[in-house]
Amino acid sequence: MKGEAAPAAEPISSHAIRMDAAALNAFMAEAFPHSRPGSRGHVVSAAPGHVQARLDPNEQALRPGGLVSGPTQMGLADMAAYALVLAHIGPVAMAVTSALNYQFLRPCRPGPVMADAHMLRLGKRLAVMDVRLWTDDPERPIGQANVTYAIP
Amino acid sequence: MKGEAAPAAEPISSHAIRMDAAALNAFMAEAFPHSRPGSRGHVVSAAPGHVQARLDPNEQALRPGGLVSGPTQMGLADMAAYALVLAHIGPVAMAVTSALNYQFLRPCRPGPVMADAHMLRLGKRLAVMDVRLWTDDPERPIGQANVTYAIP
Amino acid sequence: MKGEAAPAAEPISSHAIRMDAAALNAFMAEAFPHSRPGSRGHVVSAAPGHVQARLDPNEQALRPGGLVSGPTQMGLADMAAYALVLAHIGPVAMAVTSALNYQFLRPCRPGPVMADAHMLRLGKRLAVMDVRLWTDDPERPIGQANVTYAIP
Amino acid sequence: MKGEAAPAAEPISSHAIRMDAAALNAFMAEAFPHSRPGSRGHVVSAAPGHVQARLDPNEQALRPGGLVSGPTQMGLADMAAYALVLAHIGPVAMAVTSALNYQFLRPCRPGPVMADAHMLRLGKRLAVMDVRLWTDDPERPIGQANVTYAIP
Repeated sequence: MKGEAAPAAEPISSHAIRMDAAALNAFMAEAFPHSRPGSRGHVVSAAPGHVQARLDPNEQALRPGGLVSGPTQMGLADMAAYALVLAHIGPVAMAVTSALNYQFLRPCRPGPVMADAHMLRLGKRLAVMDVRLWTDDPERPIGQANVTYAIP
Repeated sequence: MKGEAAPAAEPISSHAIRMDAAALNAFMAEAFPHSRPGSRGHVVSAAPGHVQARLDPNEQALRPGGLVSGPTQMGLADMAAYALVLAHIGPVAMAVTSALNYQFLRPCRPGPVMADAHMLRLGKRLAVMDVRLWTDDPERPIGQANVTYAIP
Repeated sequence: MKGEAAPAAEPISSHAIRMDAAALNAFMAEAFPHSRPGSRGHVVSAAPGHVQARLDPNEQALRPGGLVSGPTQMGLADMAAYALVLAHIGPVAMAVTSALNYQFLRPCRPGPVMADAHMLRLGKRLAVMDVRLWTDDPERPIGQANVTYAIP
Repeated sequence: MKGEAAPAAEPISSHAIRMDAAALNAFMAEAFPHSRPGSRGHVVSAAPGHVQARLDPNEQALRPGGLVSGPTQMGLADMAAYALVLAHIGPVAMAVTSALNYQFLRPCRPGPVMADAHMLRLGKRLAVMDVRLWTDDPERPIGQANVTYAIP
């Protein structure tokens, strides 16, 4: 149903990335000077089609019962997706979130939260990504997001 | 396709509410002691089927260019939906977000952000709500959310 | 968070439409020659920012228990959103569905199904719409969709 | 944020299934007597946590340009998710779709369409699944769905 011209013949996973984890973290630290590491997280690794991010939640990221709050989870998913787009298109372009659909799957206990973002499609105007959040077992995600970014 | 038994014959808008704006704000201030007013927002009004909330974003709620960040917007939508559920089922039950779908519609400039949450369906196990965020004109929303809460 | 240039100052509801209900139905009958009225539905009215569509489900649109099937509901929501886009941009452009999020709210009993599609934002590249499906009472929708179309 | 009691300690992939592909196809043929194979598809394989389905679209499943229509894609995603739920809970229970979020990723050319449905979480009341649709290359999906079923 999507009539937009398909990208080149190679799958997205063969694309080269333009920014590695260090470059992504430096870019985001400058872009979001007011956010703290304990609420934003950082990029652990970046590869073609995949970025892994990690958050060590601070006290304000928790909600009653000591669980990591929903907005904190969604913020981490958004950050991982943003990093995945930047890794592929580079720091020059201004990409903006167009839609974020989040499913809360299991209670998110305190401690490090990992986010694996995979590219589903990188088009000229839209990037669509799948993001899984997990704590102790990647096979038992605590949340799943589908994130769409508009590329200018 | 939804086979769950339908609620009673009257539309949800005729249901009585069990908590007003003051009760909702007191409940949430106690439930989220670490969150600050500038990041969480507060309930302005509560009526059958409708809650209005407001956020006056603090500096940490902004992103580059001075726009209100995506996670801040999604957090406000989640809070308004939570308040709408509580208004109808009362403070005794523990409701948890099951899914939150958010569409970013327009840039969210700094200043007060309003959120109008309307009940689409209040079932025995799930509440589904529509939330619109706006700044200067409710007819030109800056974001729209569909939020599902699981009711224990 | 959405950095895309905002549309002109007037709200979308003041835009003129370029196709009325008759023109929309003629266009879609030609575009989908294989679909039957009982599975596709037709446009009842078109106005700035709003299209109403109606489906009289045929036997193949039903599922066990005589309820209208989920794909039939989602197809009607998609058609109403498509008509709403066409009403505003005219028949020349090829618009394609980019995302469709559907919430099943209540059992959809057989008989006429109405769909009210409202424009949330009509940008240069994306149109985002809210669609409500109902049978006997618009205040008690049987389903709600958020539909995004990409505009070439 | 999801406070629902977590399932037993083993990951979902270790659960046994209660219906295989043949049993699922027999059940659905009886449940949907009016749907035709060319519009509904069939189950290819069923394993713990995973069902694969296939659709050979008939003429009415196509839209202009010969592409497989959006509702056909969403119907296949819904069917694969339904089969995945049934495979785990058995044919006795009546499960109903609660929400279906679909992302159109690439044009869906005619010919066989495959759907891989994976369980993200199987709770007592809700099952949440990821479904990928593809034609020639599973690494280049034509669509992605997140489907939630309510379990009675």
